[in-house]
Amino acid sequence: MQQPTLHVRRVGIDTWRENVAYLHRDCPVVRAEGFQALSKVTVQANGEVISAVLNVVDDERIVPPCDLGLSEEAFRRLGVAEGHTARIEHAEPPPSIAALRRKIAGERLGRDDLHAVMADIAGARYSKIELAAFVVATNQYELDRDEVLHLTEAMIAAGRRIDWRADLGHAPVVDKHCIGGIPGNRTSMLVVPIVTAHGMRCPKTSSRAITSPAGTADTMEVMAEVELPMDRLQAIVRQTGGCIAWGGTADLSPADDILISVERPLAIDSPGQMVASILSKKIAAGSTHLVLDIPVGASAKVRTMPEAQRLKRLFEYVAGRLGLQLEVMVTDGQQPIGRGIGPLLEARDVMQVLRNDPMAPQDLRQKALWLAGRMIEFDPDVRGGEGWHLARDILESGRALAQMEALIEAQGRRTPPAPAPLMFDVLAPTAGTLVSVDNLRLARIARLSGAPQVPEAGLDLAVRLGDTVQAGQLLYRLHARFEADLAFARQLAEADNGWVIGAATSVTPPLGSGGR
Amino acid sequence: MQQPTLHVRRVGIDTWRENVAYLHRDCPVVRAEGFQALSKVTVQANGEVISAVLNVVDDERIVPPCDLGLSEEAFRRLGVAEGHTARIEHAEPPPSIAALRRKIAGERLGRDDLHAVMADIAGARYSKIELAAFVVATNQYELDRDEVLHLTEAMIAAGRRIDWRADLGHAPVVDKHCIGGIPGNRTSMLVVPIVTAHGMRCPKTSSRAITSPAGTADTMEVMAEVELPMDRLQAIVRQTGGCIAWGGTADLSPADDILISVERPLAIDSPGQMVASILSKKIAAGSTHLVLDIPVGASAKVRTMPEAQRLKRLFEYVAGRLGLQLEVMVTDGQQPIGRGIGPLLEARDVMQVLRNDPMAPQDLRQKALWLAGRMIEFDPDVRGGEGWHLARDILESGRALAQMEALIEAQGRRTPPAPAPLMFDVLAPTAGTLVSVDNLRLARIARLSGAPQVPEAGLDLAVRLGDTVQAGQLLYRLHARFEADLAFARQLAEADNGWVIGAATSVTPPLGSGGR
Repeated sequence: MQQPTLHVRRVGIDTWRENVAYLHRDCPVVRAEGFQALSKVTVQANGEVISAVLNVVDDERIVPPCDLGLSEEAFRRLGVAEGHTARIEHAEPPPSIAALRRKIAGERLGRDDLHAVMADIAGARYSKIELAAFVVATNQYELDRDEVLHLTEAMIAAGRRIDWRADLGHAPVVDKHCIGGIPGNRTSMLVVPIVTAHGMRCPKTSSRAITSPAGTADTMEVMAEVELPMDRLQAIVRQTGGCIAWGGTADLSPADDILISVERPLAIDSPGQMVASILSKKIAAGSTHLVLDIPVGASAKVRTMPEAQRLKRLFEYVAGRLGLQLEVMVTDGQQPIGRGIGPLLEARDVMQVLRNDPMAPQDLRQKALWLAGRMIEFDPDVRGGEGWHLARDILESGRALAQMEALIEAQGRRTPPAPAPLMFDVLAPTAGTLVSVDNLRLARIARLSGAPQVPEAGLDLAVRLGDTVQAGQLLYRLHARFEADLAFARQLAEADNGWVIGAATSVTPPLGSGGR
Repeated sequence: MQQPTLHVRRVGIDTWRENVAYLHRDCPVVRAEGFQALSKVTVQANGEVISAVLNVVDDERIVPPCDLGLSEEAFRRLGVAEGHTARIEHAEPPPSIAALRRKIAGERLGRDDLHAVMADIAGARYSKIELAAFVVATNQYELDRDEVLHLTEAMIAAGRRIDWRADLGHAPVVDKHCIGGIPGNRTSMLVVPIVTAHGMRCPKTSSRAITSPAGTADTMEVMAEVELPMDRLQAIVRQTGGCIAWGGTADLSPADDILISVERPLAIDSPGQMVASILSKKIAAGSTHLVLDIPVGASAKVRTMPEAQRLKRLFEYVAGRLGLQLEVMVTDGQQPIGRGIGPLLEARDVMQVLRNDPMAPQDLRQKALWLAGRMIEFDPDVRGGEGWHLARDILESGRALAQMEALIEAQGRRTPPAPAPLMFDVLAPTAGTLVSVDNLRLARIARLSGAPQVPEAGLDLAVRLGDTVQAGQLLYRLHARFEADLAFARQLAEADNGWVIGAATSVTPPLGSGGR
């Protein structure tokens, strides 16, 4: 059975990271090979091979019967011109599927297994179904610490790894990371100017918001370009010592990005996956020293101290084995950090702190100084305990602000958007003391108001835990560009504004020493 | 933010059971709503709402900027005409996702949880990722027996349920089912004529082959139409007492079909899922009495007797609670049943048995009599132990053959294809006794030869376990229509023909009493 010659045709459908091949139902290959919709296939052309999922097409405008349509992702990966001849075959399952099945059956995976799985995932040879199976089978405490170590190692090996030594010599490459879950909390945008002003190297790449109302990349983008090609980014780091850029283009730990695309819709973020994800990205990005922030609170990702300690030990074990200097700080995650929630409002908070504005949110300032101080103590010339003072001096002297301006200039300055035209004040329904707040609820209200797609949208907090309020006093102000967004956000806030007002004595004391 | 008016456009892409919506990247809705590729959306038109996954399109020939493209499945489910106005919004996760997350976290699900999950799955509100997560989280022994009971109940409730009483009165509606894994084994095509000739009601719907070289529906289709609309099927059952039809169109336990589309690529078939799948289909199809065949063997689905006993008890518990009379038979699954593997060759075996041909495969004949005998004993007028004799009398008298001819006529007779033009003989490489055979290997070789897409393809066994062979003696003959298929199958058979030849004393005795 000789296949008729098929010609590659680009089908302008963006399937995100999934390779899709389109064949017309009347194409003789469909019947001869017994292809069905969603068959897994391999496409070969010009010595290149990709895996894809098949969609059967009934419309010749999409694919004529003797063409082989490829989605944008598949076309890019195959890398041949339109009209090139190609072959399509049933795909054998990728070799590591046997390991996946063993993990589903509850077995422990070895180093080679995990390397094979990550190589197949990074090579786009896993379907969404197989990815979801891996994520669920390695969820919770299903991975022991050596499996997490090997998973991290395998994620790094399956992508690019930046070596800053050509640019920076053997100086430490420092970074900070927060496991997330707390609105506001834009400490990275303060920490990078402070530690690079101290002379350290901090090439910080951040994510955009996915389920939150703002990511560091979204917030920096209010003021500067963040989508920088790797060579520009390296030039900026050589010039200024750092950057605050979007990390999405660098092919660092690509298997992690692919797994995240499945973990997110399932809202799965297990300890093992979190450790492998964060540490693989940092090590692949060339970091040698890392300060890691684990906020703890009733509506944070980590809810109890024992859970935080367990997670901390897992991070320390894996980092230690992979030669990354790690300092874990367990911080107070009971409420948002700073006042603004949303890119423009968070950028305003950051600039107030950098300008030593007396109106600046003190919680954001203190937390940033404390994190930057620990990073500065990675400098072998700095004595233990001096970091915080050095960080404060850099901030108060205006050197951090000057350094931020230099970073903005180097990355490319952008004009911030005008403040949001529409506002709505959410008021305390009763008098009392603010005893708790639901971070997830505030984040959801901010997203409905339009953040982060609308950078000026979000909410601006007027109160903190422990404050005593009168009935009718302002809790926070909603900002929106569009009436419909404001109406949605307002509706949600009116159903439950996220704050619990109670008696003054019932306030929980802040957790740990980190938050203040 | 008022959405511009979108018009529905049918996009001729068969995405199998997945609803896909296509929007052009320049459609203002994409930016305004912050849609990305693979966003989950709801589409509303004319009071109908469906869930879909979004694909972003760059080609106006597929979807112009103010149209809302829908894949075939989505278009069918929404049920409005092309050009109808529609709205698209971010989808809230289906309500039962909270239950899914609890199951992923290892919790037990209650009756209401499982009903909610199955209703959402049957309503196409789960993405492939969420389906895979459910399948993995309920894999192995993750479901206790009450969860399996409630899952079964929920699968039935989420679809149609046939009530045969209007057609058949209160007579038992009998069925038989094999959990699968053994090539050949076409007992259903013998059992249905025998028990309906006895006067029982046996409206048998079967599946097509998915991973095997032939299903009962594929084999019956060699001789008769099997894709019958429900009203024709009911008329045939009224007339003849039974049918041997394809069950794919009946909307019986549709959540099960959707879950199977995910279980299959993962090769997951856990006890709980198997029990819920089989029993939900049988009860939804209106069966009141069921004989269930569990073959046990080293390369069967169930590999050990204790495993078979455990599975038997689970089937019995759930069937008992749901009012289904169940008889489980554990049978010998060490080797294929009958000689042929592939639709035409298996149909030949069946007809040889019905014709009382001395060449008929005795193992197939004995197993069918034994199963039919147990089914006949569901008849309250038959004494325990008489069933086998009654079944044998029906077969030997030619009444089973006459009944099969009546079924073929009623369903619509088809002319069988000509025998395969290409053959290749696989010979014993050494002399000795056949001590074991790999069912999976034989199935794979038969599939490569073209079965079931090419009904005359497959393989024809010349030997059985325990036979003594000479070097060069025929083990089996490959049949194919196409040279390339024959070459592939031959290559696989030459690498390993599936049979182990050893010393005469090492043959494993058959398991249980069932197989002979």
